[in-house]
Amino acid sequence: MLKFVFTCGDINGIGPEIVVKALNKITVKNPSTKFFFICPSNVLDTTFSFLNPSFDYEIVRNNKNSSSYQVTIINIGKIKTKKGFPTISSGLTAFQSLVKSYQSLKLGASDAVVTAPVSKTALRMAGIKFPGQTEMFAKWSGSKNYVMTFLSRKMNAALLTIHEPLKRIPNLLNSKRLRDTLNVILHTLKFDLGIINPKIGVLGLNPHAGEGGMIGNEEKKIIQPIIKQFSVKLNIEGPFSPDAFFANKLHKNYDLVLGMYHDQVLIPFKMINFGRGVNYTAGLPIVRTSPDHGVAYDIANKYIADESSMIQAYKYARRIVKNRKKKIASG
Amino acid sequence: MLKFVFTCGDINGIGPEIVVKALNKITVKNPSTKFFFICPSNVLDTTFSFLNPSFDYEIVRNNKNSSSYQVTIINIGKIKTKKGFPTISSGLTAFQSLVKSYQSLKLGASDAVVTAPVSKTALRMAGIKFPGQTEMFAKWSGSKNYVMTFLSRKMNAALLTIHEPLKRIPNLLNSKRLRDTLNVILHTLKFDLGIINPKIGVLGLNPHAGEGGMIGNEEKKIIQPIIKQFSVKLNIEGPFSPDAFFANKLHKNYDLVLGMYHDQVLIPFKMINFGRGVNYTAGLPIVRTSPDHGVAYDIANKYIADESSMIQAYKYARRIVKNRKKKIASG
Repeated sequence: MLKFVFTCGDINGIGPEIVVKALNKITVKNPSTKFFFICPSNVLDTTFSFLNPSFDYEIVRNNKNSSSYQVTIINIGKIKTKKGFPTISSGLTAFQSLVKSYQSLKLGASDAVVTAPVSKTALRMAGIKFPGQTEMFAKWSGSKNYVMTFLSRKMNAALLTIHEPLKRIPNLLNSKRLRDTLNVILHTLKFDLGIINPKIGVLGLNPHAGEGGMIGNEEKKIIQPIIKQFSVKLNIEGPFSPDAFFANKLHKNYDLVLGMYHDQVLIPFKMINFGRGVNYTAGLPIVRTSPDHGVAYDIANKYIADESSMIQAYKYARRIVKNRKKKIASG
Repeated sequence: MLKFVFTCGDINGIGPEIVVKALNKITVKNPSTKFFFICPSNVLDTTFSFLNPSFDYEIVRNNKNSSSYQVTIINIGKIKTKKGFPTISSGLTAFQSLVKSYQSLKLGASDAVVTAPVSKTALRMAGIKFPGQTEMFAKWSGSKNYVMTFLSRKMNAALLTIHEPLKRIPNLLNSKRLRDTLNVILHTLKFDLGIINPKIGVLGLNPHAGEGGMIGNEEKKIIQPIIKQFSVKLNIEGPFSPDAFFANKLHKNYDLVLGMYHDQVLIPFKMINFGRGVNYTAGLPIVRTSPDHGVAYDIANKYIADESSMIQAYKYARRIVKNRKKKIASG
């Protein structure tokens, strides 16, 4: 039996709403799967008053495995909300929910975690130093070579650098990092996504991918040599001129596109997927997925949020868990 | 009577083909407009053998104003071609065509130039040091505050930096440059495009537009204060998180989007416009537009190139020339 844990994300945003909306659909389609939802009880009450839960559930204080209900709500107390705004409480609660979800994974109570969006501002207000959830799970699981990836039917993508100021990116691009990233990607495409002979497209760093060295030399010095190295064992092409790549829809030719920095990948990814993409942290021992959108404070109290990306995040988590179990089973 | 000059671009690419295809349509719709096309005679012969010209024309060696033909071909000799490849000859010819077009503008023989795409590699092979055509016209016309803009019905955009290595961009972003750029943009929106009360959206430099200073401080230090200064006299908003901006289609709310670097703007612009965008150099005393695509060596000998962007480039040149004449007429 598969078991998934959902976090509440920022309780002043759309997190609890999209988790409940997603569970309403997912539980019906997956009757033999168990779900945990880590959320303050008062937030749950409010959410349920707007969105009638279609599933059977119990509310407990601590995770346990023996429940006969399909959904187990892990109550983390009553927390004051202020819908639409980042607060110390919302940052702390988001963090607490994430910590508990990791404990659930470590104990084997859950096979994967699907995380609702958090506010980096709220986390910072609460004194949490992590730049994002990706970095938390990486730290807790002791993983150094993790890669932020974005998954969808239309395009899979990975980032060499994540939440870094633009000025740091050229320094972060080096052969070792690129090699490590490609190894993580290769492993994840094969064993997490089940793509036997994956094809990877790599973007350049500079405009026109450096135009033969005229606009920056990172392509010639770093990216091209590493692509050449990997091309011996892997179907890999690049570095491509980033604007021409997406203008010509070349992403359709690859199982994954590796970009050098956040906006180079996320501008096109989000344009192509209209809020249906999934954020997946590749390279971790645990499985964690997330919607690719934010807390949406502007619509936090309207109950009009779209749960599509949250459902997709669950589906990818399920697919990855199954592929990993298959690998273990087959040795 | 309006007069436009077209350059041949790189003769081993699709330049001559899309100019002739465009002229075939444009001349019919604009019977009282005169056109010049600067091109080697043998390249013209080959192109005409595939694409029957629908216009009346004469071939001359030097620009003159007294022709009774609608199209005057300015022959710059016979040049050896090697379709599909950058060569010294193709670089030199592209450059010569551009130099002649500028002379035509200076002499008043043409009101605007529409430039076909060039290969930066071919230009470099020919010893031409300019990073692109934009920089040539800026240099020749003695303009320092010029801005590369991209125009289309769906989105107008401008770049703070053009063909710069990514690592140089943070150093190039300073208050003076941003202020100068905004002044050029404001002038061009009002007087070239005829938008009386333009609304401008400004993108951040860093992921999440710096996330309140957590991911880079250029937004707080430079971009926000300048936006505040300009907001007194202008409808201006930002800095926006670049990925969220395009994901939420916020570009529809603005007459122009100002981005900090090449790929931040050109990835979304080209995705939105599917090769129908126009490159316009704002801030020059002369009017120059260009298609937003490259030489397309891969289809250079197939005569299947799409002239839409070239036609759009002509239409914008015409609109800008008319607006500028109107401004002069009205004082």
